[in-house]
Amino acid sequence: MPLGELAVRHGCELQGDPALEVDHVATLRAAGPGALAFLANPAYRSQLPGTRATAVVLAPAAAGDCPCACLVSNDPYAAYARIAAELYPPPAATPGVAPGASIGPGSEVPASAAIGPGAVLGAGVRLGERVVIGPHCVLGDGVNVGDDTRLVGSTTVYSGVTIGARCIVHAGCVIGSDGFGFARGRDGRYTKVPQVGGVRIGDDVEVGANTTIDRGALDDTVIGDGVKLDNQIQVGHNVVIGAHTVIAAQTGIAGSTTIGARCVIGGQVGIAGHISIADDVMVGGGASVTGTIRRAGVYGGGPTPADDLPRWRRNMARFGQLDRLAKRVRALERGGPGSDTDEGDGAG
Amino acid sequence: MPLGELAVRHGCELQGDPALEVDHVATLRAAGPGALAFLANPAYRSQLPGTRATAVVLAPAAAGDCPCACLVSNDPYAAYARIAAELYPPPAATPGVAPGASIGPGSEVPASAAIGPGAVLGAGVRLGERVVIGPHCVLGDGVNVGDDTRLVGSTTVYSGVTIGARCIVHAGCVIGSDGFGFARGRDGRYTKVPQVGGVRIGDDVEVGANTTIDRGALDDTVIGDGVKLDNQIQVGHNVVIGAHTVIAAQTGIAGSTTIGARCVIGGQVGIAGHISIADDVMVGGGASVTGTIRRAGVYGGGPTPADDLPRWRRNMARFGQLDRLAKRVRALERGGPGSDTDEGDGAG
Amino acid sequence: MPLGELAVRHGCELQGDPALEVDHVATLRAAGPGALAFLANPAYRSQLPGTRATAVVLAPAAAGDCPCACLVSNDPYAAYARIAAELYPPPAATPGVAPGASIGPGSEVPASAAIGPGAVLGAGVRLGERVVIGPHCVLGDGVNVGDDTRLVGSTTVYSGVTIGARCIVHAGCVIGSDGFGFARGRDGRYTKVPQVGGVRIGDDVEVGANTTIDRGALDDTVIGDGVKLDNQIQVGHNVVIGAHTVIAAQTGIAGSTTIGARCVIGGQVGIAGHISIADDVMVGGGASVTGTIRRAGVYGGGPTPADDLPRWRRNMARFGQLDRLAKRVRALERGGPGSDTDEGDGAG
Repeated sequence: MPLGELAVRHGCELQGDPALEVDHVATLRAAGPGALAFLANPAYRSQLPGTRATAVVLAPAAAGDCPCACLVSNDPYAAYARIAAELYPPPAATPGVAPGASIGPGSEVPASAAIGPGAVLGAGVRLGERVVIGPHCVLGDGVNVGDDTRLVGSTTVYSGVTIGARCIVHAGCVIGSDGFGFARGRDGRYTKVPQVGGVRIGDDVEVGANTTIDRGALDDTVIGDGVKLDNQIQVGHNVVIGAHTVIAAQTGIAGSTTIGARCVIGGQVGIAGHISIADDVMVGGGASVTGTIRRAGVYGGGPTPADDLPRWRRNMARFGQLDRLAKRVRALERGGPGSDTDEGDGAG
Repeated sequence: MPLGELAVRHGCELQGDPALEVDHVATLRAAGPGALAFLANPAYRSQLPGTRATAVVLAPAAAGDCPCACLVSNDPYAAYARIAAELYPPPAATPGVAPGASIGPGSEVPASAAIGPGAVLGAGVRLGERVVIGPHCVLGDGVNVGDDTRLVGSTTVYSGVTIGARCIVHAGCVIGSDGFGFARGRDGRYTKVPQVGGVRIGDDVEVGANTTIDRGALDDTVIGDGVKLDNQIQVGHNVVIGAHTVIAAQTGIAGSTTIGARCVIGGQVGIAGHISIADDVMVGGGASVTGTIRRAGVYGGGPTPADDLPRWRRNMARFGQLDRLAKRVRALERGGPGSDTDEGDGAG
Repeated sequence: MPLGELAVRHGCELQGDPALEVDHVATLRAAGPGALAFLANPAYRSQLPGTRATAVVLAPAAAGDCPCACLVSNDPYAAYARIAAELYPPPAATPGVAPGASIGPGSEVPASAAIGPGAVLGAGVRLGERVVIGPHCVLGDGVNVGDDTRLVGSTTVYSGVTIGARCIVHAGCVIGSDGFGFARGRDGRYTKVPQVGGVRIGDDVEVGANTTIDRGALDDTVIGDGVKLDNQIQVGHNVVIGAHTVIAAQTGIAGSTTIGARCVIGGQVGIAGHISIADDVMVGGGASVTGTIRRAGVYGGGPTPADDLPRWRRNMARFGQLDRLAKRVRALERGGPGSDTDEGDGAG
C-alpha cells in the first residue's frame, strides 16, 4: 500500500516518499522494511529514533524525531487503527453452507452468507448479506442477524434474539439464555419464573469470548449501537447498555440496570441490579457500583490493592473496627476517651 | 387460559369474570388485552391503576386499586411464576436422534429422549425419559442424566458425572473437568494430581450459561436438589452445595468447601477453600468469604463502592495505614501522640 | 500394581509386603482393600490409625502410626501424585479422524493423532504425535500443536496460535481471540484496532475450562512452560506469564502485563495492565494488583471479608471518610480538633 494513498484516504499529512509501500504493521522496536508502526503513547517516544520501520503514524510534535517516512495526524492512534484495518481485512469466508450444517424451515440465508461446519440454524432464522456463522454456532428459532455480522464460532444464540449489522461475536458466547429469575416458596423451594423477553443487540457491536447475555424476563435486554464488550462479561436480564459504551473483561451487570452512552467500565467491575448509570461515566477496574450514578465523571473503587501479607491482614482487621475507631476519635475531640476504648483495640 | 381455571389450579382468589382469558404475560406498563401482569414489588404499585392488562396477580392489599380482573394471592410472585410456567412450557423437542449425533456402545437412550445435531455420547451413557441433549453437547463415558432434564447445548459433561431429574443446564457449561490439583516439586515444577472423583448433581437444579463445575479429587463434588446456579460460576473440586441454595453470577467457590442448604449467595462472591457455610446464610454480592460461617444470618462484604476517583484514592491510601492510625488513636487516648506519628501521615 | 515396584520407581521407602497390590486411590477415610491413600496435610493425621487402605504414602514422622503398609517419602504429596498418575493414565483416544471431522488443505495430522467428532481443522494445521483433538474443537489456519497435547473438547483456537507438547486444554476454552483494542474517535465512536499478534503456549501447560487467552495486538501473548491456569481465567493481549507459574480460577490479567516465573496467584485476582510482577511472587485470592511488584514475597489484598451486614455497612461508610478521619487524628495529635470535625461524623 503506497504511503501517498494512505495519507489521502485517512487524512494524514505525509512526510516522505509517497511511493513507499507498507504491507504490515509492527511495534516501533520490532519493525523492519515494509512495516508501518505508530507512536501514540509517550512512554514509547524513546523508541522512535531507532525504529527501522518504513513509516510511522504519529502526532505533529513527534514528526521531527522520526528517522523515516511518517504519516502525521492529530489523532495518531485512530489514524493507525483505520490504516491497519485496511491492511488486515477480516478473514474472507467462502459463501455457502458447509457440509454438516443444518438450516431449519423458513430460514432466510442469502447466497452471500457463509455457514460453517456444524452450525445449526432453527426455524425462521433470518440472516443479512455476507453474514458469517462460524463452526458449531447454534441459532434458535426466529433469530435475526444483520448484514456483515460475524459469529466466530461455538456461540449459542437462543430463540428470539436480534443482532445488528457489522457486529463481531467471538467464540464461546451465549446470548439469550434465561435470566436468573426464581420465586421462593414458603418451603424454601424455588419456582422458575419464565423468561419471555428477548435480547436486542445494535449495529457495530463487538462481544468478547465466552461472554454471556441473558434474555429479559418480560421486556428485552438491550445492547446499544457501537458497544464493545470484552471477554467473560455477564449481562443480566433486562439490562440496557447505551450506545458506544465499552466494558472490560469479567465485569458483571446484575438485572434491570441501565448504563448510559459512551461509558467506559473497567474489568472485574460488579454493577448491582435495578440501578442506573449516567452517560459518560468512567468506572475503574474492580469497583463495585452499588447505587445509581447520576453524574458524568470518573469513579474509582475496588478491592484493597496487593500489599505485604501481614501488613494487609493487620489493616483489614482494623477495617472491621473502623466505625468504632471513628467514634473513639470523636470522643477524643470532645475531650475524653470513648466508652468502647477497652474493646476497641483487640485486633492482632 | 380462562382465569377461573387458573384461580382454581393455583389457589388464588379471583376478582372478575372467570371466563376471561389470558394468553401471555407482560409488565404492568406494557400489558394489553390478553396479558397477565403481576404486582409483587411495591416500587411498581403506582403502575397498577393505569394498567391495560386483562388480569393482574397481586396481594390482597393491592386488590382494591386494580382496574381489571385480578388473581389474589398471599404470595403473588410465586403464584405468577406457576401460572407463567403453565403459559410458557419448555420448548418441545422432537424425540429421536438428530443426524450427525453419535451414540457410544452400551448407551441407553429411551425413545422419548431428543438428541440434537452434533451431540456426542460416549459409552455406557444412561438417559432418563424425555431427556433433551441439545446440539453439540458432549457426554463422556458413563454419564447419567435423570428424567426430563434438558442440556440446552454446547455443554461438555466429562465421564462419571450424574445429573438428576428435571434439571436445566444452559449452554456452554463444563461439568466434571479436572479439579485444580498439582503437587509442587523441589525444583518448582508441578506434577498433576489425578482427579478421580466425580460430580453428582441433584434433581431440579438449574445451571447458568458458561458455568464450570470441577470433578472431585477423590470424593465427589456435590450439588444438592433444587440448587440454582447463575451464569459463569466456578465450583471447585469437592465442593458440596446444600439443597435449595441459590448463587448469583460470577461467584467462585474454591475446593473442598461446604455450603449449607437454603443459602442465598450474591454475584461475584469469592468463597475460600476448605471452609464451611451454615444453612440459611445470605451473603451480599462481591463479598469475600475467607473463613467458616457458623450461624445463619445476613453477611455483607466486598470491594469499596465506586466513588469520586481522587477521593477514593486518598481513602485507599489511608487504608494502607489503618493499623498505624488505630495505634495513634490509642496513644491519644492514653494521653499523648504515638511514637510512629511522624511517619503516620505520609499519604498524598 | 505391587508396592515393591512403586517404591522402587518413585523413590519411596517401603514398610510392608512388597507383593501387596493397589489398584486405585482413595481418601484415608473412604479407603478399603486395594486402595492407596496418602497423608500430606497434618489436619488429616487423626484419620491415619483407622484407615483400611492397603497402603498409605506418608512422611517419615507419620510412619509409626500407620496401621498398614506405607510408602515413606520426604515429599509425600508429590510422590502420591506420581504414583496416582501411573494408576490413572490419561484416557486412551483411538487414533484416526472421526466421522464428521473436517481437515483443511495442507494440514499435517500424524496417524497417531486422534481427531474427535465435529472437530474442524483449518488449512496448514500441524499436529504432533499422539495429539488428541476432542469433539467440536475448532483450530484456525496455521495452528501448531506439540506432541501428546490434548484438547478435551469444544475449544476454539484461532489462527496463528502455537501450543507446546504435553499440554492439557480443558473444554470450552478460547485461545487467540482478538485482544480488546479500540481507538476512540472525537465523536465518541470506536474503531477496532486489528489484533495481528499471536499466542504462544509452552510445554506442559494446563488450561482450565472456559478460560480465554487473547492474541497479541502486534507481538504475541506468551504462556511459559509448565504454567497451570485454572478455570475461567482471562488473559489479555500481550500478557507474558513466566514458566511454572500457577493461577487459580476467575483471575483476570489485563493487557501487556508480565508475570514472572514460579508465581502463585490466587483466585479472582485482578491484575492491571502494563505492569510487571517479579519471579516467585505469591498473591492471595481476590487481591487487586494495581502496580508493579518488584520483589519476591507474599502479598495479600482483596475485598472486605463477609461480616454481619449492618456492621459491615457502618464500617464501609467510614471507609468513605477515612482520609478525613486521618486528618482529624493528626489535628488531635497537634493539640486540637481538626477543622472538618463537624462534617466528619455524618455516617449512619
